[in-house]
Amino acid sequence: MLAKKYQEMLSAKSVIRSLSEYATERGKQIGYENVFDYSLGNPSVEVPQSYTDTLIAMLRDENSMALHGYSPTLTIPAVREAVAENLNRRFGMNYQKEHIFMVSGAAGAIAHAIRLVTSPGDEILTFAPFFPEYHPYVDLSGACLRVVPAHTEDFQIHFEAFDAMMNERVMAVLINTPNNPSGVVYSAQTLQHLSAYLHEKQEEYGHEIYLISDEPYREIAFDGKSVPYPANYYENTITCYSWSKSLSVPGDRIGYVAVHPACPDAELMIQMCGQISRGIGHNCPTAMVQLAVAKNLDAVADLSVYETNRNILYDELVSLGFTVVRPAGTFYIFPKALEEDAVSFCEKAKKYDLILVPGDSFGCPGYFRMAYCIDTEKVERSLDALRRFVREEYQSS
Amino acid sequence: MLAKKYQEMLSAKSVIRSLSEYATERGKQIGYENVFDYSLGNPSVEVPQSYTDTLIAMLRDENSMALHGYSPTLTIPAVREAVAENLNRRFGMNYQKEHIFMVSGAAGAIAHAIRLVTSPGDEILTFAPFFPEYHPYVDLSGACLRVVPAHTEDFQIHFEAFDAMMNERVMAVLINTPNNPSGVVYSAQTLQHLSAYLHEKQEEYGHEIYLISDEPYREIAFDGKSVPYPANYYENTITCYSWSKSLSVPGDRIGYVAVHPACPDAELMIQMCGQISRGIGHNCPTAMVQLAVAKNLDAVADLSVYETNRNILYDELVSLGFTVVRPAGTFYIFPKALEEDAVSFCEKAKKYDLILVPGDSFGCPGYFRMAYCIDTEKVERSLDALRRFVREEYQSS
Repeated sequence: MLAKKYQEMLSAKSVIRSLSEYATERGKQIGYENVFDYSLGNPSVEVPQSYTDTLIAMLRDENSMALHGYSPTLTIPAVREAVAENLNRRFGMNYQKEHIFMVSGAAGAIAHAIRLVTSPGDEILTFAPFFPEYHPYVDLSGACLRVVPAHTEDFQIHFEAFDAMMNERVMAVLINTPNNPSGVVYSAQTLQHLSAYLHEKQEEYGHEIYLISDEPYREIAFDGKSVPYPANYYENTITCYSWSKSLSVPGDRIGYVAVHPACPDAELMIQMCGQISRGIGHNCPTAMVQLAVAKNLDAVADLSVYETNRNILYDELVSLGFTVVRPAGTFYIFPKALEEDAVSFCEKAKKYDLILVPGDSFGCPGYFRMAYCIDTEKVERSLDALRRFVREEYQSS
Repeated sequence: MLAKKYQEMLSAKSVIRSLSEYATERGKQIGYENVFDYSLGNPSVEVPQSYTDTLIAMLRDENSMALHGYSPTLTIPAVREAVAENLNRRFGMNYQKEHIFMVSGAAGAIAHAIRLVTSPGDEILTFAPFFPEYHPYVDLSGACLRVVPAHTEDFQIHFEAFDAMMNERVMAVLINTPNNPSGVVYSAQTLQHLSAYLHEKQEEYGHEIYLISDEPYREIAFDGKSVPYPANYYENTITCYSWSKSLSVPGDRIGYVAVHPACPDAELMIQMCGQISRGIGHNCPTAMVQLAVAKNLDAVADLSVYETNRNILYDELVSLGFTVVRPAGTFYIFPKALEEDAVSFCEKAKKYDLILVPGDSFGCPGYFRMAYCIDTEKVERSLDALRRFVREEYQSS
């Protein structure tokens, strides 16, 4: 008999995917260049030439059996070492290769992190607004995801609501900074507060509470500011990274899990990742991709287009009267809709070929997400549609 | 709290890995060229040049955002279509792209297949001798793997023992032909018998029983013979393939799941694979690797060395008096040890720097595996050690 739970998931289709498919269909009618498709978070900048050059050189020059051979169970040691050194230099950490495990992107990283620190029935808390894929990631592991309501003033953490939901079954807290969908970066103050609170609760419950920190947008930060590194604030942090956005290579499926060296049994945790991989059939990301990122740890794609787009959109939204928190990173913005029902708001926007995603599935009804990983030229052309939409639907009566 | 089950797995270390590590250590003392390391099943032939050329050309010529972009949820349609057409041409099937799902190697394929057709508590039967990794693959999904004893005369299926273990909770049967560790290819007669038996049991139990067919060694067949394709014999077949061996690219992590078009809800099953991927964090194999194999579906590495090695080893083992079934494919041979305890036999072999793997973990005590994916020159040099080992340990008294 076919497994029921996966069949049921199919009927609950992703809102983002559906809107993206609508945009593609609409594009066939009026030309995709005329659809202001803010639905999908796909990187829209070129891959750094150095990354491409590295891959070509390896394919041309290296022994094919070595380049395409099996990775060891714990992934390629030299790659793990290079990642550890890079993190130590950038964030003042003291990782060794024994704290790093290479994975197939952030989804793979989170799949390992969850299984590492929870058993079926345990709870994981996350904070709205949150990436809706966290639900299948956590739920299908057997653990249970519960969502703390948003602190809508600034999309930092709503500590009162958090405290109301905290309980002894919570084994991990899952954060995402810079945040999809809000674009907000958790401040040092937020992370200090979070750390103090989790320390207190660990003491109270007599067990570890791990911070699973999902950081694929770490390199997309605006206004010249740096992003506070959560593991600098809390020892029991499992950092989940993906190069999908910083190198613009989501199809390559490459990232890492980094366990804070101060975690009890930190090295054991990485060895356990090797066993988790056997159980879920990962068995290492593509070897040549591991090797290629290790040689491009300081490379980043030209991410400046995202800041340019943020500036244009934020200014326009503010001038049109939207309530909106200014994103400090990512390629998302998360304004308040002009009516209570964001689903209805986004439906009306379609008339103007503006594809916006309602905030409901991000745990934040009444808001909507725009993914501005598109050409600046198109962002500029979309402003007129945005103005007409607001004027005709919300200012005409 | 760290998940107990993965910690426990660490204490049950793989026998194969331990022997391989021993061989590496021993190599540091006497030179690895002097260690006759038959432990690991790592391909030992060059990657076809056409595959390398394809990757280089794509990296050089194609748009980087397209080449490194996200795969769709169900993996790249053009790749799925090419795989379907290739299978149809070679095996007279009628797959469409809707029946193909690209995965990260055979481990990924099996991880999806198991979750597709079982729920926790269901049983999967497999046949000794079997690949020991099937245990973590199945057990960690929540299903239960039970092993049917071997038919040691020819390592085809022991149908009497199979019948004795069959019951209503069995939702799938997992086979591996050509087989690791025996090198045996299931005959058309075996597959016909298996099909008839499973049809009867489906009728009796009133539910489907799926055949999960793990076929990474399909292209390594000897004596000019072809390998019967299990899906030609049984409709409810889920074929799991990996290019690790045929293209010599185990580090690239690339394979597919092919659902027989006659399966009830065959297309739904592939859609469910997309949902399973979300739950276990796969989210598609590396996109450029998907694209590269699609352009090399008729390429194979020069696999002739494996047949040469098979001939040398089989003849020598027979002349030394071993009871051994002649492998028809793979790069394994699985003779009977010269004493009842194969662990003791393999331990003694170490004195002669022969690294052999006892059959116990393959579900077949008293036998041992030799993985002859090594240079022919080394196989030839090992014969003297093999002769001395047999003479001094088993013929001297």
